[in-house]
Formats: sequence, structure tokens, C-alpha cells
Amino acid sequence: MSDLVDREYDLLAERLAHQGLDLEGIKERLKVQEIETPSWGYGNSGTRFGVFKQAGAARDLHERLADAAMVHQLTGVCPSTAIHIPWDKVDDFGALKQEAEDLGIRIGAVNPNVFQDADYKMGSFANSSERVRRNALDHLVACIDIMEQVNSKVLSLWFADGTNYPGQGDFRRRKHWFEAGLREVHEALPEGARMLIEYKFFEPGFYLTDIADWGMAAFYCKHTGPRAQVLVDLGHHPLSTNIEHVVAFLIDEGLLGGFHFNNRKYADDDVTTGSVNPYEVFLIYNEIVAAEDDPSIRDLDIAYMVDQSHNIKPKMEAMIQTVVFIQSAYARALLVDRNALLASQTEEDTVRSESILQEAFTTDVRPLLARVRKEMGLHPDPVAAYRASGYFEKIAEERVGELEGAGSWG
Amino acid sequence: MSDLVDREYDLLAERLAHQGLDLEGIKERLKVQEIETPSWGYGNSGTRFGVFKQAGAARDLHERLADAAMVHQLTGVCPSTAIHIPWDKVDDFGALKQEAEDLGIRIGAVNPNVFQDADYKMGSFANSSERVRRNALDHLVACIDIMEQVNSKVLSLWFADGTNYPGQGDFRRRKHWFEAGLREVHEALPEGARMLIEYKFFEPGFYLTDIADWGMAAFYCKHTGPRAQVLVDLGHHPLSTNIEHVVAFLIDEGLLGGFHFNNRKYADDDVTTGSVNPYEVFLIYNEIVAAEDDPSIRDLDIAYMVDQSHNIKPKMEAMIQTVVFIQSAYARALLVDRNALLASQTEEDTVRSESILQEAFTTDVRPLLARVRKEMGLHPDPVAAYRASGYFEKIAEERVGELEGAGSWG
Amino acid sequence: MSDLVDREYDLLAERLAHQGLDLEGIKERLKVQEIETPSWGYGNSGTRFGVFKQAGAARDLHERLADAAMVHQLTGVCPSTAIHIPWDKVDDFGALKQEAEDLGIRIGAVNPNVFQDADYKMGSFANSSERVRRNALDHLVACIDIMEQVNSKVLSLWFADGTNYPGQGDFRRRKHWFEAGLREVHEALPEGARMLIEYKFFEPGFYLTDIADWGMAAFYCKHTGPRAQVLVDLGHHPLSTNIEHVVAFLIDEGLLGGFHFNNRKYADDDVTTGSVNPYEVFLIYNEIVAAEDDPSIRDLDIAYMVDQSHNIKPKMEAMIQTVVFIQSAYARALLVDRNALLASQTEEDTVRSESILQEAFTTDVRPLLARVRKEMGLHPDPVAAYRASGYFEKIAEERVGELEGAGSWG
Amino acid sequence: MSDLVDREYDLLAERLAHQGLDLEGIKERLKVQEIETPSWGYGNSGTRFGVFKQAGAARDLHERLADAAMVHQLTGVCPSTAIHIPWDKVDDFGALKQEAEDLGIRIGAVNPNVFQDADYKMGSFANSSERVRRNALDHLVACIDIMEQVNSKVLSLWFADGTNYPGQGDFRRRKHWFEAGLREVHEALPEGARMLIEYKFFEPGFYLTDIADWGMAAFYCKHTGPRAQVLVDLGHHPLSTNIEHVVAFLIDEGLLGGFHFNNRKYADDDVTTGSVNPYEVFLIYNEIVAAEDDPSIRDLDIAYMVDQSHNIKPKMEAMIQTVVFIQSAYARALLVDRNALLASQTEEDTVRSESILQEAFTTDVRPLLARVRKEMGLHPDPVAAYRASGYFEKIAEERVGELEGAGSWG
Repeated sequence: MSDLVDREYDLLAERLAHQGLDLEGIKERLKVQEIETPSWGYGNSGTRFGVFKQAGAARDLHERLADAAMVHQLTGVCPSTAIHIPWDKVDDFGALKQEAEDLGIRIGAVNPNVFQDADYKMGSFANSSERVRRNALDHLVACIDIMEQVNSKVLSLWFADGTNYPGQGDFRRRKHWFEAGLREVHEALPEGARMLIEYKFFEPGFYLTDIADWGMAAFYCKHTGPRAQVLVDLGHHPLSTNIEHVVAFLIDEGLLGGFHFNNRKYADDDVTTGSVNPYEVFLIYNEIVAAEDDPSIRDLDIAYMVDQSHNIKPKMEAMIQTVVFIQSAYARALLVDRNALLASQTEEDTVRSESILQEAFTTDVRPLLARVRKEMGLHPDPVAAYRASGYFEKIAEERVGELEGAGSWG
Repeated sequence: MSDLVDREYDLLAERLAHQGLDLEGIKERLKVQEIETPSWGYGNSGTRFGVFKQAGAARDLHERLADAAMVHQLTGVCPSTAIHIPWDKVDDFGALKQEAEDLGIRIGAVNPNVFQDADYKMGSFANSSERVRRNALDHLVACIDIMEQVNSKVLSLWFADGTNYPGQGDFRRRKHWFEAGLREVHEALPEGARMLIEYKFFEPGFYLTDIADWGMAAFYCKHTGPRAQVLVDLGHHPLSTNIEHVVAFLIDEGLLGGFHFNNRKYADDDVTTGSVNPYEVFLIYNEIVAAEDDPSIRDLDIAYMVDQSHNIKPKMEAMIQTVVFIQSAYARALLVDRNALLASQTEEDTVRSESILQEAFTTDVRPLLARVRKEMGLHPDPVAAYRASGYFEKIAEERVGELEGAGSWG
Repeated sequence: MSDLVDREYDLLAERLAHQGLDLEGIKERLKVQEIETPSWGYGNSGTRFGVFKQAGAARDLHERLADAAMVHQLTGVCPSTAIHIPWDKVDDFGALKQEAEDLGIRIGAVNPNVFQDADYKMGSFANSSERVRRNALDHLVACIDIMEQVNSKVLSLWFADGTNYPGQGDFRRRKHWFEAGLREVHEALPEGARMLIEYKFFEPGFYLTDIADWGMAAFYCKHTGPRAQVLVDLGHHPLSTNIEHVVAFLIDEGLLGGFHFNNRKYADDDVTTGSVNPYEVFLIYNEIVAAEDDPSIRDLDIAYMVDQSHNIKPKMEAMIQTVVFIQSAYARALLVDRNALLASQTEEDTVRSESILQEAFTTDVRPLLARVRKEMGLHPDPVAAYRASGYFEKIAEERVGELEGAGSWG
Repeated sequence: MSDLVDREYDLLAERLAHQGLDLEGIKERLKVQEIETPSWGYGNSGTRFGVFKQAGAARDLHERLADAAMVHQLTGVCPSTAIHIPWDKVDDFGALKQEAEDLGIRIGAVNPNVFQDADYKMGSFANSSERVRRNALDHLVACIDIMEQVNSKVLSLWFADGTNYPGQGDFRRRKHWFEAGLREVHEALPEGARMLIEYKFFEPGFYLTDIADWGMAAFYCKHTGPRAQVLVDLGHHPLSTNIEHVVAFLIDEGLLGGFHFNNRKYADDDVTTGSVNPYEVFLIYNEIVAAEDDPSIRDLDIAYMVDQSHNIKPKMEAMIQTVVFIQSAYARALLVDRNALLASQTEEDTVRSESILQEAFTTDVRPLLARVRKEMGLHPDPVAAYRASGYFEKIAEERVGELEGAGSWG
């Protein structure tokens, strides 16, 4: 089979050369792609109806880091892992940083939690109690302190604040509290760091979510400061939303800070990226590649982070499958002939314009990615490599009893 | 104020007499209305992001029954309570029946649980393991045994079976397993009992739900037997679904078995009935009253059951508020002038037809319900009566530490 | 009956006095409420499947003005009518202004049309042809000229620009063209006038809409200038959107310019306001009243405009019914006890907070509105007055043959 | 390039042989695939905001047939065209049949129209006027007569019946009228013919649609007779509906009669099949192929029909693009390894099960389809062949002035 894949690659290379694409440049970009995996993606999680515990699920941060390192080892494009405080709290974050580096990875975004404590029942920054608002701010500042210790450059903020009933909260009063809180966070940010503000259409609030859409997140950023940007979670939009349009709009406003990758068919399902509509993920990457190629766009700095909640699929396999899918979306977007596209758009040749995208999407990039991995010294098929590695058997045997539980997360 | 309410009632009576409505008949129907409250509505519950424990939340079935009895005492229309097995499992169900009767209520629907055990991770009746399918059937038969002990006439079936990913399950194979399982349940039903089959658009399955809509539930009923009917949960439809149309369609097919009342703005939010769109609940009751008034409809036997999950509102207050709202929806529907409506429909006078419904909906029925309650020997305002009763203070003090947890539930 | 309504009013007044509400102040606010009706609401319209012509539908602008004047005569709160260019194009707009004044009304918002001409098949401001973009701008400037002639203060902008297929248009290039076009419009605005930018989730574009949500509209306003504000059409949001939250957010940002009132169950259905979820309209007015009552909000200047498309209901009746419904929504919102609400919100008493809104919504304000109308010298029931007026019979007889057709409109 | 495609085919053949797939059998199935194109897809159509006329759009049935024949000539898989009465009414249907045959095609489904005439303003079979219900029935019987003349075996029924407002119609009364009407149609069907009942979530009714979902259509079929089956239009479901599940359910019940292919992102957008979520179309074909391969499924008889409304894309190109896409969906579904899938499902290996589908979907089938076309004596790329044919230039020149207009259609 390996010989077949090589020949498939050769033929693909021949086709892409016909199209005038710079195959070596494409491979270079695929080699430096970075996808951050989340520590909480390696532990047990579930739905409100229950959590089905998995054999081998990571029980503490050390095991989560080991799993993240294994994913990076197999894929080569996951050099960092996001942490969640307090689920990932340790006594010595300096030692943690070293532990990650020893594993060949680094700590990525720091994700505070201001929704789980009983205190936050009625909200964090939008809580009518000044004490609770102050607690929330203190927690965020503590997370910023952790950022400095682990050399993280991204504070990733998801607020569960919202209400379940009309009348429960005063929209504008809550907005003002949020503006004040976010400004204080901005002031506390370390040099060179950013804060990403996530929005969500609903849940756990079933009437109001204080930061309900990209527009609210963007206005909060504008009121907060230059280092506040918007975080786009693929599952946090109303159904049918043209997400790639939102992405392009935010890029144009200099406000796109990063992604939480997952997929959804119904609500915030947090299923595997690309499992519902792979074409949509391609169209999002198409906007990213267009911006990367656009000399008028400066300072594009996007954090690509996975945020999924797998209840059924084995954690490690699901994560590797996700990373491979995201690579393929980027690869396909790199195959779009942008000059031809601009020309057909200007000529109003809609069938041709659409076909240019569809041809890139339809191209089977598996031989290309296999070659990229080979050139990076990796196995061409990370899932197969994982299944053959014995890693699962090892952790399933070792990780008996749950030491420490991680929760679910927006 | 009480004098004011009396005068408001008198004026309302005068207006309704003008309209030719039979006020005494309406009051009689309001007095015999029955709304079943669920035992699991009195204990702690939450979202996938966490459960905020409430002071006074019931810790075991005995406390849940006491709460249900208190709601009946205050409202007069909640004479039964649904139970959930195993959450409400006791050693002696004969004693439980007596305990409920001593409290002035009875046991209503029995709700099995075939989704929470680790065994059911990949489904119950749609599980590819014959052993698990048999376990599920055994559990349902055990619940039927409990029905006989507590003299329940309704087996209320919600199946969480579904999948998260394309390919994960074979749709038609799963369907056949479901048909077989349901037929076995039907055969085991006691004399005079029914089984209600609930459907749900999604969750916890995020790709497939085996019984995804009323049509599938209705076809399963047809394949199962004459004592299988459909259960309509107000939160289990795609957005915008004309639920009152589904209700009328099921009534016409003789397949409407009951309701789970709650409300939703986004997904299966399980918030208080009437909190999102009170007009919609009225329109549903409008179909029910039309069927009650229609001599061609025989054997209408609808179980009206509450199924909500309150994370923020105090359990008892939320339940009483819910019951009062449902009463008001029924009361308004009883005010619709059906002869005038039929005439205006036949004349294609759309503005008039709509106005007939709107006028009934807009009528303030609080004085009417206050009078009904007075005539039933109750306080005219159940929420106020509850707040004045000292019941909450008592249970908040007594119920310290959680003895036994109930779960969340579709 | 008229005596009964008087006694109902007296009893309502007694109840509101108990609640400490300023009934005279409330009546004053109801008397000065203004709702603008659209000229295109008086002519034939339909769906893509066809237009069913109505007896008496207005055939030209003169008939539309007469109809609008009749609605104002009956309701007392519709002193202006919006016009649509070119559907309402006349030779002498000075004479038109006089004609309206002679009828007791005035010209309200001017609505340009840059979507109907063949030229706009691929968009207006987002068209890749500079010529078409220039045509669109010229048309808008011509409309501004009309504004000056009829003394209109509102330019109401809806752009149908969008695409049907991925690849068809370049998002960011289109955005830049829009920014440039809108800025030129802003520069041309007359002294004291505003331009309102409408957004829409989808249709007629089925993949992209250039101004797809309130956030995009708001960002365009920010890029355009201080006299650009957002126009909220109630039917232009994804399902489940918390519209009252968007309204409050825009008010807080000083960006709420006006409304297009209608209702929707599914998409942009353009059905009668309040026909789907009357509680939602109340909750929107609740935010408006809260802002009116808030001394920190200055310069609140909201244009309240109807925009519906009635295919089944007779045009005039539907319009009057709409106006009466909007009055009732405002009336109910004026009954909210805001001090009690703020207190219960601060105490986190969710059941109480919600009940305060529900009690206002549940109050039957028909006697109050009947009294307001009587005090304004009007018939207490505008629909009944219209049916008794013989107006319909007159126009149905006179308006034979269609002189001039108006179209459909977002 | 042609040589490259040949080599790509050879490599693909090698890969599929590795997988144990029967390539010759797959090619045979692709050669006999049939996709019916609709006559109304060749004429001008639009949205409620207007129709942009296209150069070369067919002006009458003769031109529509010529276009349909050209599509068949280029693709080889479109041997029939659906007609719509009265848009396609001719004096001599016998001559029409011959005309089609002379062009190398045949007449497919006959589609009656009971929504466009003023008579149908308030519905057809659900109209409260017995006269109108009778007119509708007469029209359907007249269409059945046409079926006999053109030897059509499919009567394709879409009813626009619905209401816009609560109260406007009585749900159960309307249901009974529908049942009676459909039974009469069934009795009139010619030997060997079927009637397909289409459902639609909404539009043009914005409150009620009488046949709103597959469940209602299926119950109507059951009440109608054995030759009534359900027609699935891909754009007629609530958002997120798992359409492939509905398809499998209908197949299992023996009720799947056919498809209307198109795609939708928002509502019933009627855009090109596969343009929104190509994976979804593949998953639907996956169920069809599974049923074709299942010996327990007998009498599978599915009519595959295109129903799109192109406002922007040139009609002919859009149709060819659609057909090519549907071919590729079928081709990919034929590559699924069903034995491996069943095994992995039984083993509950979700990642593997999903991957089996994804691998088939990801395979680039363009070389396979090119080869199939070559073996059928066709150009390997039908869109390119069409662009090179000069057909468009010819019709754009000839078809000046609109002779006869076709409408829009659900």
C-alpha cells in the first residue's frame, strides 16, 4: 500500500503542477501548521444525562500532558496544550512548564473557570453581587499569574453568564459590569499576551447569554483594549450561520483571535470537527488562507484550538482523528487557485467560482498529507500508528480509578 | 385586594355571560383538571456544566412525595406524581402506595431509566448487544411490575438511544430491534394500562436519535399495539414546529397519550412552561378543548405531566408557578367561542378567526382562577400561600446533606 | 357593552393605583406613541408562489396615502407613512408632501430600492462592477433629494446584496465596497437626518448576506458616521435569537435607530406583529420603556415602523390590527413596576422578577386603550370602526384594475 | 490532461481492488443511474423580490424539452423530464410524447398545480369551499389523464395548503378533507402508476402547512392506498433534520417513493444539490445503496428528480453541474465497504465505522466518472462539453422575448 500512496502522491503532484500550484510551498505551510489540543479533552466528560467513563481516560494533569505529547508525537502539528484552571491546577507551575517541555510540548492557552463554583450560580462578571464579581476578577488575575509562570500568551475567556427567564437580569446593567470587569483583566495582562473573548448562542443560559454572538464579543473587545480579540467556537452559532463570513469580517476588523474547533448538527454538540459538514470547515480555512495570502492583512495571529467533548469515541483516537481532519481542511484550502477565483468572481461566473472551491475540496489530499508526514519523520497514518503503538493498552491498564475529574466546558 | 379580585371576577362573569359562555361549566372543568408533577422535579438537577444544589431540595422519594403533596394541597389539581426507576426505587412499593395516599396523592406514571447505566453507553433497545437489549427489556418489565404494585396505569418511555456519528449505527437494524422490544413491553402491560412512547429531536445523541419525531413514535405505536400511544414533550421538537398541529393530528389518529410540559427557547431547555411563548401553550390547549368538545372524538385519555429541570428557580416555587400557568392556559382555551370560530373559518374571515383566539388569550383569567380555588377551599394565590406557609424554611432546615441524588432526564 | 368597558377601566384603574402606577402618565405616553405605516403595505404583495390580488388594494401612491390616512384617523397613532422609491415615485414631491398633510399625515422614512432592477442581479454596493455600485449610490442620493423635498428625516436602507454559492463573492472585498458606499451616503445626508442600516439573516441571498446580523450593521455604522444607526426588523434574525437583548445592547451603544415591526414563526414570514409570540413583542417594548425611564439614556430616537406582507388578510384590517397590537404591547410594558423589578433582580428572586413581567403582560389592557382612544376622540375599537365605516366597500368598488404594482420587500 | 485522468483512474482502480470492491459492477450501476430533470428548471424563476431574466431561458415546453434532451445528451443519465401542469400544458399530449422520444428522452412525473389560481388562495383540498376542493380534484384527475397520454407512471403531488394565522383553519377538519381528496386521486390512478405525496415544513403557509412533515405524508399514504408513497424534497425539513434517517425509515416502511433534489442552508432555498453540505447527500445515497444491496428490501422503486430554482446561475450549466454532483454522491456511496461497516458497528468501533464512510466520501471519484462517461460514449466533463458546444450562444440568440412564463414551485 505504501508504494501505492507514493504513486498517488506523484500523480497528485503532477496534477497540481498542471494547475500552477507551488507544491513545495504548500508542504512547508502544512509542516508549520499548529493545532492546540485541550487538556480537558483527555479526561472523562459527558452530557447532562451522565458521563460514561472510558478506559484509559486521563485522571490528572500529568496524564493529560502525556496524552497531549503522544498526539504531538504522532501528528507533528500539536506542539501545545491548553489548560483549564482549576481543573489543571498544580502547586508548581514552573515545574509544570518544565514537565511539558520535557515531553516535547508547551502550555498554550490558559482557560479560567468562573462558572462551576456555587458562587457563580447567578453569574460571574454579570452577578449582581459585587463580591462575586470581585471573586471572578481575582480568579482571572490568578490565571494571568499562571500565564506568566508557564509563558502562555493567550488567556481564553468563556463566560457562562446568562439567565433562564425574562426579568431575571437587567441587560444593560449586566453589560456595564462586564465592560468594567473585562477592562480590569486587560490591564492585568502580561506583556505580549492577548485575551480572547468567546461568545455562545445559548447554554447554560436558556433565555439570555451575556456574550451571545460575535457582535457582542467584538463590541466588548472594542471597549476593552487592543489586546482583546474574539474567539470563534464552531459550535456557538445559531443554525445556518455563515461562519466563514463571520471569520472574514473579524479578520478584516483585526479582531479574530482564535478558534475552538469542534462540530455540531443541532446545538453546541461538541462532536468531532468535520463530522457534520466537512465542506464548512474547508470554507473557513479558505478564508484563513486567503488572509494569509493577502499582503494587506498584517499581524494575523490566530490560535487554533480544539475543544470537543467525546462521550462515545475513545479520547485519544478522537483527538488524532480531529487533528488529521483539520490538516486536510487546511491542505484543501491551500489548493484553491486564488487568481482564477478572483477573476471568475469579477466576471460573475458563479458556476466557475464555485467549481474552483469544489475542485480543491474534492481533491483527495491523503497522499499529500502522508508525504508531508513522511518528510517530517512521522508515520503517514497517525490513527493507524496510534492503534499499533500499544499506548491505549498501556493507559487502560495503568489508569485505574479516577484520581481527579475534569468537568464539561462550553 | 381580595374584595377587588371579587369585583374583577363579577365583571368578568358579566362579560363572559354577554359572550354566551357557560361560566359554571367552565369552572367545573377547571376544578377537575389534573396535572401530574414529577418526583424528579423536587430534587437537585442541572446542566452538563454543573448542578447548583438548592436549599430544601428533596433528597429521597419520601421527601419528593411530601413536596408533591404540598403542591397538590396548594393548587388542588395535582393529585398524582410520576416516579422514575431506579431513582425512586424503594423496597416496598405497596407501602409506597399507601404513603402517597396518606399524603392525599397517588402514584402516576412509572418512568423507567435505560440510559444511565454504563451498559447503555451504546443504547438500550438499539444496542448491538443482545444481552443489553435483554437487560433493558428486563428493566421495563420490572417497572411494569411496580406499576401493578402502585396501581399505575401509565408506563412512560423515553429512550436516549441514538448515535453521535454517521456510520456508528445501522438505522434499519436498530429500528427492527426497537420494534421487537416495544412489542414485548406491550405484551407485558397490565390490564387497563398504557405505554406512552416519547420522541425527541436530539440529545444526548448528536447525530441520530432513534425515535426522533412524532412520526417515528407513531409508527412504532402502530407496530406495537393498541395500548401504545405517543407522548408529546413540548421541548422535543425542531424550532418553529407547529406543535398544536401535531397534537391535533395525533388526536385525530387516536394516538395522543400524554404531555410532558415544559418550555424551550433554544433546545430541550426544560424551563418553566409558558415562560417563552405563553400563546403557544394556549394554542395547544385550544386543540385539547376542541377535542373535548367534539362528540366525534371518543376515548380521549391524555396524561398531563410536568417535566422540567430547574437549576436556578427554587424547586417548589417553580412547580407551583408551572401548575398555575397551565391552569391559566386551560382556562383561556375554555373561553374560545367555538361556534363563532367555525363560522368565521368557513367564511374565510381570517382576521376575525384569529381575533377570537386572541380575545380568549388576552382575557385576564386570574380572577376566574382565584374564584375556582376559593370554591375548592384553597387560597386564591398558591405561590403567595406557599411563601407564607413556612414550608420552605422547614425543608431548608431539615434537608441537610444529600441522601440520594436524582439525575437529569430527557 | 360600552358601559361594561367603562367599569372594566375603573376597576383596572383601581388595581393600578394599588400598584402605585401613574395612570395619567401612562395614558399620556400612549397618546403620543407613534407607529409609521408603510405605503407598500396597502398594495398587493405575495410569496414567490404567487400574488393573490385583493379587492380594494391600493393601486398607486395616492391611494396608499389615503389608506394610511384612514388608519391614522381610526387609531390616532399613525401620523406618518414610509415611502419606497421607485414604487412611490411621483413627479412632484412637493405636491406629495402637501397631499399627505391635507390628509392629516406626513411622509416618514424614505426607502430606496437597489435590488429590483436587472442591474442589481449580482448586488448593489457589493457588485463587482463599479458602474453598478455608482448607479446604486446615485439612486440613494436621489432618494436623499426626495427626503429634502418631503421633509423626511430617515433614510431606511435595506440591501439585498448577498450570494447563493460559496466562492461567488469575495467577502472582504465586498465589505470594503460597502464601507465606501455607505460613507458617501452619510456625506450626502441632509441636516438633522439619519440613515438606518437594516440587517437580515438570509434571503434573497441563500449563502451570504452582506449585512447579515446586527453586529455587521453596527460595525458598518461605526465605519460610516454618527448619523448611521441600526434598523431592527423583527423577522430578520436566526430562530430563537433573544431580540430584546439585541435591542438593549444597541440602545446602550447609542445605535438603535428604529424597528420594522412584523412577526415570524419560520423565516422572514412578514406576518402580523404579535401573531406568533405576543410575549416577545412585550419583552422588546419592556426594554424600550426601561430606556425611556432611564435618565442616563439620552437622545433616544427610535423610528417605529410597520413592515409586513399580507397575502391572505385584507390589507387595511391587517394594518389596523397590527397597530392595535403594538399599542397593547407598549401599554403592558408601561405597567411594569421597575423599582420592584430592580429590587427582585438584586435579591436574585427569579420567580418574583419573572412574575413582575408576567403580571404586566397578563393584564388585560383593552379597557385602558379604549379609554385612551375615547379621550383622543376616537372609537374605542378601531377594527370594528373600520368594518362599520364602509371604507372597504368603497375602495373595493373604486379600485378596479391594477394601475401600478408595488413589489415585495425585505 | 486526458492521459493524466486515465492514469488517475488506473490508480483508483488499483486502490479499489485492494479494498475488494467490484469496480465493474460499480461502473454498471453508475451507467444505469437515472436522474429526472424538471421542465420548470429551464425557464426563468426567482424569489419574492423579483425574477432576473436569463439569456437563453426556455420560453415554452418545446424549448424546455430541447434543453432537457441536451442535458441527457451530455450526461447520459437524465432520460426523462418532469412536467408541470398547467405550465406545460399543450393541446396534444400524444404529440408531446413523440416529440420527447424524438429528442431521445421521455416524459417523467406529472406535477399538478393547485396553488396558483386565485381559487386556491385559501387552499385546495383543505379549502372550506366544496367547490374549490372539487376543482382541485378535477385538475388532478385531468393530470392523471395526461399521465396516460404521455405514459407517465408518477403523479407528483405538492400541496401548498396551509394557513398564516392561528384560528384561520380547523386542523382536523382540513385533515379529513385531505384524506377524502387523496383517496379519490388514488382511485383514479392508471394501472401501474403511483402517486407521491410531498411534505414541506413551511412556505407559503407561515403558520400551518397541512402536510408538514414526513410523518403526516406517511399517515396520509396509509389512509390513501398502496400506490401512495412519500416524496422527500431535500429542502423541506426543519434545520438539522437527519434526512438520511428519515429516508431509511421510509424505505423500511415501504413508503419511499422519490426525491426532489436540491440543497438548502436556511429555508427552502432550492439551490444546487450538494452546494451546502455535500457529505449529507452522500449519507443519503449511502442509505439508498444499503437498501439496494439488501436482499430483504423488495420493490424498491425510487424516483430521483431534481427540483431547484436558479436565479443567478445559468439554467443549463446549473442543471448539468447538479447531475454531475448527484452522480458523484452515488459513486462515493458505492465505494462504502458494507461488510466492514457492519462488523465495526457490531464491535462498537465508532471511529472505524465513521472512517469507513469518510474514506468513501473522501475518495476523488472524478476519474471514475470520467471513465464511466467515456465507456458510455460521452465527453468526460459534461460542463466543459456544454461550454464548448455553442448551445448557450445559440439559445441566447434565438430565445428573445418571453413567450410563456413558468412560475416558482415548492
